[in-house]
Amino acid sequence: MKKLTIISFLFLSIISVALGQRKIVNLPDLPGYVTLKCDFHMHTVFSDGNVWPLVRIDEALRDGLDAIAITDHLEYTPKKEFIPVDHNAAWKIGETYARERNLILVHATEITRKMPPGHFNALFINDASLIARDSVWDAFEAAIKQGAFLHWNHPGWKAQEPDGIPKLYDIHKRLIKNKWLHGIEFFNDSEYYPLVFEICKQNNIALIANSDSHGILSEDYTEPEYTNRPMTLVFAKTRSHDALKEAMFSGRTIAYFKNMLAGKEEYVKPFFYQCISIGKPYFQNEKSLFFEVTNKSDIPFYLINGIPDAPSAITLSANSVTRVVISKKVTAPLVYDVKNVITGEKDVLKVELKY
Amino acid sequence: MKKLTIISFLFLSIISVALGQRKIVNLPDLPGYVTLKCDFHMHTVFSDGNVWPLVRIDEALRDGLDAIAITDHLEYTPKKEFIPVDHNAAWKIGETYARERNLILVHATEITRKMPPGHFNALFINDASLIARDSVWDAFEAAIKQGAFLHWNHPGWKAQEPDGIPKLYDIHKRLIKNKWLHGIEFFNDSEYYPLVFEICKQNNIALIANSDSHGILSEDYTEPEYTNRPMTLVFAKTRSHDALKEAMFSGRTIAYFKNMLAGKEEYVKPFFYQCISIGKPYFQNEKSLFFEVTNKSDIPFYLINGIPDAPSAITLSANSVTRVVISKKVTAPLVYDVKNVITGEKDVLKVELKY
Amino acid sequence: MKKLTIISFLFLSIISVALGQRKIVNLPDLPGYVTLKCDFHMHTVFSDGNVWPLVRIDEALRDGLDAIAITDHLEYTPKKEFIPVDHNAAWKIGETYARERNLILVHATEITRKMPPGHFNALFINDASLIARDSVWDAFEAAIKQGAFLHWNHPGWKAQEPDGIPKLYDIHKRLIKNKWLHGIEFFNDSEYYPLVFEICKQNNIALIANSDSHGILSEDYTEPEYTNRPMTLVFAKTRSHDALKEAMFSGRTIAYFKNMLAGKEEYVKPFFYQCISIGKPYFQNEKSLFFEVTNKSDIPFYLINGIPDAPSAITLSANSVTRVVISKKVTAPLVYDVKNVITGEKDVLKVELKY
Amino acid sequence: MKKLTIISFLFLSIISVALGQRKIVNLPDLPGYVTLKCDFHMHTVFSDGNVWPLVRIDEALRDGLDAIAITDHLEYTPKKEFIPVDHNAAWKIGETYARERNLILVHATEITRKMPPGHFNALFINDASLIARDSVWDAFEAAIKQGAFLHWNHPGWKAQEPDGIPKLYDIHKRLIKNKWLHGIEFFNDSEYYPLVFEICKQNNIALIANSDSHGILSEDYTEPEYTNRPMTLVFAKTRSHDALKEAMFSGRTIAYFKNMLAGKEEYVKPFFYQCISIGKPYFQNEKSLFFEVTNKSDIPFYLINGIPDAPSAITLSANSVTRVVISKKVTAPLVYDVKNVITGEKDVLKVELKY
Repeated sequence: MKKLTIISFLFLSIISVALGQRKIVNLPDLPGYVTLKCDFHMHTVFSDGNVWPLVRIDEALRDGLDAIAITDHLEYTPKKEFIPVDHNAAWKIGETYARERNLILVHATEITRKMPPGHFNALFINDASLIARDSVWDAFEAAIKQGAFLHWNHPGWKAQEPDGIPKLYDIHKRLIKNKWLHGIEFFNDSEYYPLVFEICKQNNIALIANSDSHGILSEDYTEPEYTNRPMTLVFAKTRSHDALKEAMFSGRTIAYFKNMLAGKEEYVKPFFYQCISIGKPYFQNEKSLFFEVTNKSDIPFYLINGIPDAPSAITLSANSVTRVVISKKVTAPLVYDVKNVITGEKDVLKVELKY
Repeated sequence: MKKLTIISFLFLSIISVALGQRKIVNLPDLPGYVTLKCDFHMHTVFSDGNVWPLVRIDEALRDGLDAIAITDHLEYTPKKEFIPVDHNAAWKIGETYARERNLILVHATEITRKMPPGHFNALFINDASLIARDSVWDAFEAAIKQGAFLHWNHPGWKAQEPDGIPKLYDIHKRLIKNKWLHGIEFFNDSEYYPLVFEICKQNNIALIANSDSHGILSEDYTEPEYTNRPMTLVFAKTRSHDALKEAMFSGRTIAYFKNMLAGKEEYVKPFFYQCISIGKPYFQNEKSLFFEVTNKSDIPFYLINGIPDAPSAITLSANSVTRVVISKKVTAPLVYDVKNVITGEKDVLKVELKY
Repeated sequence: MKKLTIISFLFLSIISVALGQRKIVNLPDLPGYVTLKCDFHMHTVFSDGNVWPLVRIDEALRDGLDAIAITDHLEYTPKKEFIPVDHNAAWKIGETYARERNLILVHATEITRKMPPGHFNALFINDASLIARDSVWDAFEAAIKQGAFLHWNHPGWKAQEPDGIPKLYDIHKRLIKNKWLHGIEFFNDSEYYPLVFEICKQNNIALIANSDSHGILSEDYTEPEYTNRPMTLVFAKTRSHDALKEAMFSGRTIAYFKNMLAGKEEYVKPFFYQCISIGKPYFQNEKSLFFEVTNKSDIPFYLINGIPDAPSAITLSANSVTRVVISKKVTAPLVYDVKNVITGEKDVLKVELKY
Repeated sequence: MKKLTIISFLFLSIISVALGQRKIVNLPDLPGYVTLKCDFHMHTVFSDGNVWPLVRIDEALRDGLDAIAITDHLEYTPKKEFIPVDHNAAWKIGETYARERNLILVHATEITRKMPPGHFNALFINDASLIARDSVWDAFEAAIKQGAFLHWNHPGWKAQEPDGIPKLYDIHKRLIKNKWLHGIEFFNDSEYYPLVFEICKQNNIALIANSDSHGILSEDYTEPEYTNRPMTLVFAKTRSHDALKEAMFSGRTIAYFKNMLAGKEEYVKPFFYQCISIGKPYFQNEKSLFFEVTNKSDIPFYLINGIPDAPSAITLSANSVTRVVISKKVTAPLVYDVKNVITGEKDVLKVELKY
């Protein structure tokens, strides 16, 4: 009865208070849009997760997120011997708590089937229990009726696709044809699925990155290459539930994890140039010019395949100013491939440094 | 349905496996006894905690504990709108899981009342539901009937004793007279209660240190002075449930937290000398002798009040060899007070370094 | 002959290269000025330090500084048995290396005497050897002749002032009268001297914060409260050697260390308001308004002494958004004292949060 | 003149003091021998390093070493414009400082030539200046005359062998024939040279691991896979200079870096079994036995290639107790390859877990 990090019930009598912090994640906006940091896939004790729903909200604030969806499984509730099934429990418990903390909580659920079709999250719903249907197609239809954004989860998960390769079965093609498939996870947990890219491009489907957390988030992603949990960056007109929804249906997303960005060139290109700025040369000697590239974002950029006589590779470390020395012999544009900004199954972003 | 740190249900089909690690906490045994690292106070979603019971077992293994008790409140179950009350739930869920991992899980509960008498844990019980009685005395009696080790929790908790001072009310005196009060928390969460010492000494009651965790343990105690969660060190004849119980009822404990040890001199004195060893002088010059003190434990010792001509203070850092230089003029025994080894309300351990 | 972090001599043949990074320290500029992060006091093997001069430059870049001065002692050269005395050695070794890396290296030295007058740094000089004079006053005069900015070091250093209190001796008064004393260290190493404030205010002298590093900087300041080395923030018209010098002589500085800012109100007040921004209320219920305060700087601000019915204290954590809940009963301006922004010996900054 | 970590000169007047700590590195002894942790290759400002010699001693104590050699280059002294060449300077400066701190300082130097023959350290010498000879063979001879232990440094260093492959040139064969080559670096800095193994085995030459540090050691090896600097483990009869020398000439060494051990089977096999202990089964069910393996060392062991029906791989984490579950069907000895204990160019140690 002591020491509650989750102070919801105490809150009734507290009228003036400093209510905790949300970390700032240093990622730029795009012109006309704010960049919302989101995670649309996680579990609680109401399915096979190990934490109470409010823990997910506290974790999101600590990680600097703008929006989350709690997506307990409709069809897999292994704790039901002790916890009665209530598909809307996490939403009911979290709604006010999130609103008071300026976090956008998206009402959601996970449709959990064998492959095909596999697992799907339905976001922006209003009653998960109506989606718990025997037939998976009925479940999809019930979700769509509620205006759901439907996204396919971990399409190459080895427990369902032992070769790790996402495949479009008939039911997926039918979903696409109906325009019922709005997103696919490119990153899930610690995996990613490069082949998702072409499916998304050809069918105008949003790329998604989610944690799919079951346990304690601060205890996952502790390996140094996992600088943060997987996040979907959504470019919304404002920081609001409805603007988020509009942006998602319009496909304005980048999947972000492990210092990698995966997205359509129309989003990752301006995003890269919002992250960096290039100064005028600050020094020169007989042979070389010296200039600086400032990267004000939390993402390092790994530039490779430099032109002859230029540095063959440059790392623009996160939140750092990188000094570059260029031979005065270099006259061609200083173009690079950005190794960690993925624009297709086998493509990375090309950029130019103009000094 | 993916990525379970808590793999209990998968376990059925796994017959040969490496089942994870338990960290070694570097603390010595006492002659004739093994030192069991224990935490007898923590909560889950079955009362006002925020995690599933198996999380508590995983946390204990990661922290190198030998034994824990999960002590959900009998009288405070704020999640009952979603989770039906079952006072033995944590025990039922955790019993086999703990045994397979060689962790001693103590069946327990918390009797949770206003002051007086405050909160009490009943350890080594067999049915918590029988202890859920209207009258607190009936609850105590029901616990004792089950052979419980009864310990008083956070006796100076400011929510119950605004001046922070533990007080013996009539009901506590009655418990003591009946020999029903077997332990008192000296450390709870991040607090401690120096006055507990005299009560324990006069009445042969064990000193206890517990975390009283409600949230995520790895997210508590992150301040650098909190090197670990509060632990009760128990000196048991073997590493087993029954030997633990015998040692507790015999009062062979030290309370350990924040690099402090609090206990009766008969336990902390030999414990200190088991932690350290002193080498012969390795060097001398005209004026001084040089020798080393090895501290093989995880606990630093802060020696103060040195004799004239000797170093006035020496820090024996954890897992380190400390070099000491002594004037050849020093002939008296090299005695010190150990600032962080508490043997009474105002007393600390006195030791001698024999080189 | 291998693996040189200090690649100066290799550089001759390298014409195009990525030359390493400078960390971004998140501190805002003031309108009309850029905020230069500076450390004007450190030592090398050419006096009693333990590193080669280029190490100081590499350390400065890693710490995100804009300018440093290496200030080897004129009068204390304990390594002279092995290293011949050369008072300009650090400057000669570092000058080009710093310029290539866009770090402002200030030519400097330390005049090192018993108290009075104690130790003084002379910055912006052109030949340290001319300042090595028997009489300390001759040394001051030689420095001033070179146009030096003269600042008094650690005026309350206990090795020189056992009571820790800075005192103005006659020679200091004479320096002030001559307008030869341009700065005084408020922070030095891990100490600070509150009484310096009044001397600086009354005599229009700049407040300075310096590391006075002798050893390895990354191995100092590892205690968690030392988030960075001491820095002098200088508000210069441009990021250049000459603009730095002009700003120093004009006294536009803040001393910064251990999450404390010490400076004249005319600088710390606009600096505080450049660090934070306050959003419109994002939520309300019957009794309260909820709004956010964004602190985009690396410095947390500790607001205390809130008005009645408002939160009594608010921590605006660094690089975080803090949520504040205000009773609708509050109508007065939301004023606070900022505990860690010092404007006088006993004064702290007063601010208002306008939501 | 303030805050000296290196307090040598202050020491004169200090007669009684606690003189700092040496970290304990958890590595077992072998029966009859103590395990000395050593680094025989590092530089200071007296060649191309960037620190004063005493820094190397402080670093060694902090890292828990028993012995070091400072090996400034004879032929490469790029700081000579500022620091006169003195090949014995580091020894003269460090000798007493090390002795007072119970660190074995080995008098040494580095013979620094183009390939062939490359670079060689001469350890246990008494005057480096006599080894500074024009002809490299004369240098070798002068070292041997002083009783030197001669070891070949980084034999596959790409600056000298672009293909990274160590090669025995005539001069090396002549050294071997003369029995003048006593050791070869298997690990140097962050590189290693597997082919060294066969040369060492065939010619009874000791395997060596050294840091070859030029800069600040605590700033190298910060990548998580570099848990410590490269160390040569030497099995000496006592912890003394002379016993170290005897053990080195007898070839009783293991090279240790990045959680890898490389050595002759006669040393690494008993060393492995000294690190671990295996408990009796603590639990069983119908199908499986459960037992624990305790690894009290700082080195994790990666066991692979398990027999049928046993776990295919087991990680025995450092300072941890690992739980292993074995099918009751397993009757054959539980043998494994230890992936990170190297006994030859392509061989790893084979072990058996007896439970």
